Amino acid sequence: MSIADILDRKDVSWMDGSGPDSDIVISSRVRLARNLYKFPFPHLLNDTTGAEVMQQISQAVNRSKDKVIKGLELVTLDTLSALDRKILMEKHLISPEHAIASEPYRGLMVDKKGSLAVMINEEDHLRIQCLLSGLQLNQAYKYAQTVDDALEKLLDYAFSEKMGYLTACPTNVGTGMRASVMLHLPAMALANQISSVVQSITQVGLTVRGMYGEGTEAEGNLYQLSNQVTLGQTEEDIINNLWVITVQLATQERNLRERLQKEIKYQIEDKVMRSYGLLTNARLLTSAEALSLLSDVRMGIEMGILSPVKREVLNQLIVAINPSHVQKAAGRELEPRERDIKRAEIIKEKLLAS
Amino acid sequence: MSIADILDRKDVSWMDGSGPDSDIVISSRVRLARNLYKFPFPHLLNDTTGAEVMQQISQAVNRSKDKVIKGLELVTLDTLSALDRKILMEKHLISPEHAIASEPYRGLMVDKKGSLAVMINEEDHLRIQCLLSGLQLNQAYKYAQTVDDALEKLLDYAFSEKMGYLTACPTNVGTGMRASVMLHLPAMALANQISSVVQSITQVGLTVRGMYGEGTEAEGNLYQLSNQVTLGQTEEDIINNLWVITVQLATQERNLRERLQKEIKYQIEDKVMRSYGLLTNARLLTSAEALSLLSDVRMGIEMGILSPVKREVLNQLIVAINPSHVQKAAGRELEPRERDIKRAEIIKEKLLAS
Repeated sequence: MSIADILDRKDVSWMDGSGPDSDIVISSRVRLARNLYKFPFPHLLNDTTGAEVMQQISQAVNRSKDKVIKGLELVTLDTLSALDRKILMEKHLISPEHAIASEPYRGLMVDKKGSLAVMINEEDHLRIQCLLSGLQLNQAYKYAQTVDDALEKLLDYAFSEKMGYLTACPTNVGTGMRASVMLHLPAMALANQISSVVQSITQVGLTVRGMYGEGTEAEGNLYQLSNQVTLGQTEEDIINNLWVITVQLATQERNLRERLQKEIKYQIEDKVMRSYGLLTNARLLTSAEALSLLSDVRMGIEMGILSPVKREVLNQLIVAINPSHVQKAAGRELEPRERDIKRAEIIKEKLLAS
Repeated sequence: MSIADILDRKDVSWMDGSGPDSDIVISSRVRLARNLYKFPFPHLLNDTTGAEVMQQISQAVNRSKDKVIKGLELVTLDTLSALDRKILMEKHLISPEHAIASEPYRGLMVDKKGSLAVMINEEDHLRIQCLLSGLQLNQAYKYAQTVDDALEKLLDYAFSEKMGYLTACPTNVGTGMRASVMLHLPAMALANQISSVVQSITQVGLTVRGMYGEGTEAEGNLYQLSNQVTLGQTEEDIINNLWVITVQLATQERNLRERLQKEIKYQIEDKVMRSYGLLTNARLLTSAEALSLLSDVRMGIEMGILSPVKREVLNQLIVAINPSHVQKAAGRELEPRERDIKRAEIIKEKLLAS
């Protein structure tokens, strides 16, 4: 399995719905920001110095006898089409910023399942990310750490005894770690509890964002929860803090769903079934509407209202409805109206087949 | 076949979608208002005089050797439950006013197919109504006339050489006839042409009303078109005038549908399919929403967008979604919320079975 396979496959590891608490926690992600000693940070690189960084890293990877490193495939962004980079972004393997870059000194390493993705020369020289299904923050951290340790043996990291890992942006200095979970909170949204939750979460040092990270809006009742602070806390503290809050929110969401099913059973079933009816019949669907309807259906599946549809199909669809995936499926560039038509076809087919 | 059968059956003659221009003209109706000489009009009847009128009519019917009269079944309203009277009203066989009456001197005669219904002691002593599928005004008039002629042989009608047939309400004096058609005009409604159509129709002596006649609103893009004048025009003139306008409107509606399918094919298909998706999946449906969605689906069937569903199923559903039909199907009285649940079940079942 290679990057080409990942581009062709509908699912990568985090979508499979197999992880703990997958009814509410779609995925867990840990990323470590690392930089090479003696090189300028990526935003100051030129073609020559950028190529040197890339060479250092690729040589280290090639030289490594570590099993986990040997399982990684490295590509430079210039070898990927703009559409394919966006596909990788929509699958959450690279950032929106990395998706619009195409210099040969920028790159990506992935493992076979697509659960590990290392961006090269994005904001930092190395961004080691592990993305797993459900609530698996510890496992994600361990996997990222293994890769980090193996690379550290071969590369000179920029590290200060006093500050920790040095990074391009000061907000990442220290552990260089950001841990996040993607949560599906439709019942809380229905009960208008999101804004108060966001408020109290901010007070404990966490940030709430939309599905595609910083600057994106929360669509489809999907919220990305992450740590704000990287300095003065150990990795374990950061992960534990996020884990506790996540478990708490998942419990709250589950309790609310139960209450809804008791108190307004028919309205909830009606909402879910109407959304399913629209998704399986509409001829035109924008991604925003589709995401909102998929949110209802995903909740309906977890509540047993729509039992025949599988959770992983919903997780796949959350990604498959994005513009680049829709165009990849059509095999050509599409006008927005054509995308809405193709998107409706994809959704209908996937839902009715599952 | 009897009134009991009509109450149990989902369809009566006018719903079967077999008549000419049934894509747009749901039904044609002709009714003749007749009164007996020497009796006060129904609103002045008491139990005694009312019973005398009823006796005159029932004796005439029993005595008649006319085939069409012998095919009629007569019941008095006191023998029908309140629910059954409403069922007959929802099937358009009796008026809303007749449905809330239960005196034994008020009654109803129907033929086996439910295409002829004579109300006894409604606003007039006799209201002979013929209701046929599609655009069949002449046929409806002929059928009503046959019954009228047969009854006139046995009863003394209140008739003035100068004024024509005398009726309780002066607006019916003369021919005593009202002819109407029920039209389905969703494309005109979409194109915002209804109000200008209503205006020009009023100028040629016709009235536009909702589905259940005077005082009811036009829901589901269903419009009842009828003559306003009964005096100074022959029956043939009235029918011909209405027929010409109906053919004109049907042509206009058809042309508009063709244009929509050319110019906004996907939006139209999307609208139709979404409505179908909601009707086959919703758990709660009010009659107003159901009627509006059924209107889209009916148009979709006629435009070939939703080919597997049959026209008569849609016509039946337009009636079957009404409160009394829904309660009859449930076998008991239902709260509004329970009706919405049962209505959604009925619609889903009928549409998916067809």
